[in-house]
Amino acid sequence: MALVVKVGGKALTANLNGILDDVAAHAESASLVLVHGGGGVVSEYSRKLGVEPRFIYSPSGVRSRYTSLEELRVYVMVMAGLINKEVVSGLWRRGVPAVGVSGADGATLKARRKRRLIAVDSRGRKVVVEGGYTGKVVKVNEGFLKLLINAGYVAVVSPLAIDDDGTLLNVDGDQAAYAVAKALRAEKLVFLTDVEGLTVGGEVVRELTVRGIDEVLPKVGPGMNRKLIEARDALRSGVREVVIASGVRGEPLTSALKGSGTVIRGW
Amino acid sequence: MALVVKVGGKALTANLNGILDDVAAHAESASLVLVHGGGGVVSEYSRKLGVEPRFIYSPSGVRSRYTSLEELRVYVMVMAGLINKEVVSGLWRRGVPAVGVSGADGATLKARRKRRLIAVDSRGRKVVVEGGYTGKVVKVNEGFLKLLINAGYVAVVSPLAIDDDGTLLNVDGDQAAYAVAKALRAEKLVFLTDVEGLTVGGEVVRELTVRGIDEVLPKVGPGMNRKLIEARDALRSGVREVVIASGVRGEPLTSALKGSGTVIRGW
Repeated sequence: MALVVKVGGKALTANLNGILDDVAAHAESASLVLVHGGGGVVSEYSRKLGVEPRFIYSPSGVRSRYTSLEELRVYVMVMAGLINKEVVSGLWRRGVPAVGVSGADGATLKARRKRRLIAVDSRGRKVVVEGGYTGKVVKVNEGFLKLLINAGYVAVVSPLAIDDDGTLLNVDGDQAAYAVAKALRAEKLVFLTDVEGLTVGGEVVRELTVRGIDEVLPKVGPGMNRKLIEARDALRSGVREVVIASGVRGEPLTSALKGSGTVIRGW
Repeated sequence: MALVVKVGGKALTANLNGILDDVAAHAESASLVLVHGGGGVVSEYSRKLGVEPRFIYSPSGVRSRYTSLEELRVYVMVMAGLINKEVVSGLWRRGVPAVGVSGADGATLKARRKRRLIAVDSRGRKVVVEGGYTGKVVKVNEGFLKLLINAGYVAVVSPLAIDDDGTLLNVDGDQAAYAVAKALRAEKLVFLTDVEGLTVGGEVVRELTVRGIDEVLPKVGPGMNRKLIEARDALRSGVREVVIASGVRGEPLTSALKGSGTVIRGW
């Protein structure tokens, strides 16, 4: 049983030790892939290095990092370096054999570069922006991930991808986690976030089916919106269950696997 | 036949494309491990981030980076992030399947932390310095490297190690390369440096045996000194040949394998 866990940057920063303690408790019972975020830390280091982070908004309201070549360098350093090795060493500290991989390593995450982005400017007008170093994951080297998993390692994946020309690209962490879960036909894909789950009208939705996603989509914000659209696709592609839960509580993975947060199934 | 190539930071910065073109030409014929340096780039980013790099000198004149926790973070970002992924993506760009690993990944490089260092101060007096985040490589997980090599990947190793407590440590790149070559019982260990080879009295020494090392040791400077002492040990531990050659000329690996630079053998 493959278990894919996406740990958002905010949860990671707020509760690194709690998350790693709990992940370590599950490391032996499952083939585990951990995908991490860390955009906030990238922004912090960008500013320290004098590169002002830039974000753009899609017409549907989704916020994305605009990645210049200068910021790509910071992204690589922070994602594939600082955060990835902090998680990997934290797992070893807990006796868990771990290997950190960026999407460039083993071409784990192959992406297609976005040449142009459609964004909305500050007055709400649609504009076309040159794509920068941002990509969309199009292929996962699941053979390489299985090589690591089958040898007994937890694979810790940072959301840095590579394209056919060997260019490094920033990819969305949630999207990377979905792509990995689909490629491995994971039993479960768990998102450890800084919220309790999917909230509609102030209440956490406990259970949801693929059909239910269409109904709630108009009622949720941009970030969660994208998570749900991809969840629908993942469940149709062989992932058995998607859980969106809090990563900032005690034993976050155990709780999520027991059904805290929002559980989304295909039926 | 395992071939281990150490690419020094200066050669890498001056001739990245030339080195990678040539490495790519040899990637299919050998099981290849590339160990890179990059101390100069670490210093550059340390300064940009307001962490002044500090170096200490051993009583025998060897210069080492003193690594505070603050600088360790920069070291991890630059070595395991920026430089490692630049090399890995550069190999993919040339059609060579590559995987970047720091010593923390798969515990490839296990190190013992140096608790105290003996250094000389500016007036030449011996002083004891707290060790910081610096280590000595004590074990290589050659099983993990073989897993990658046997699956057809070039392993690109950054000189970041991990200790038994899961602490990340800065280790010397040359030392990492020697440890890897010994663990794999490499046929050849090639150092691509910014010099032509071992120079004694203004002339490049073409060939050297283990016995010859003792004779030339008093005549060479600190950096080369350490390389030779470790070469002696590596040759006694099953490495067949150590080559010290220029990484800043055309086809540097091909030339080194043909015997340019200094070739050191066990007999």
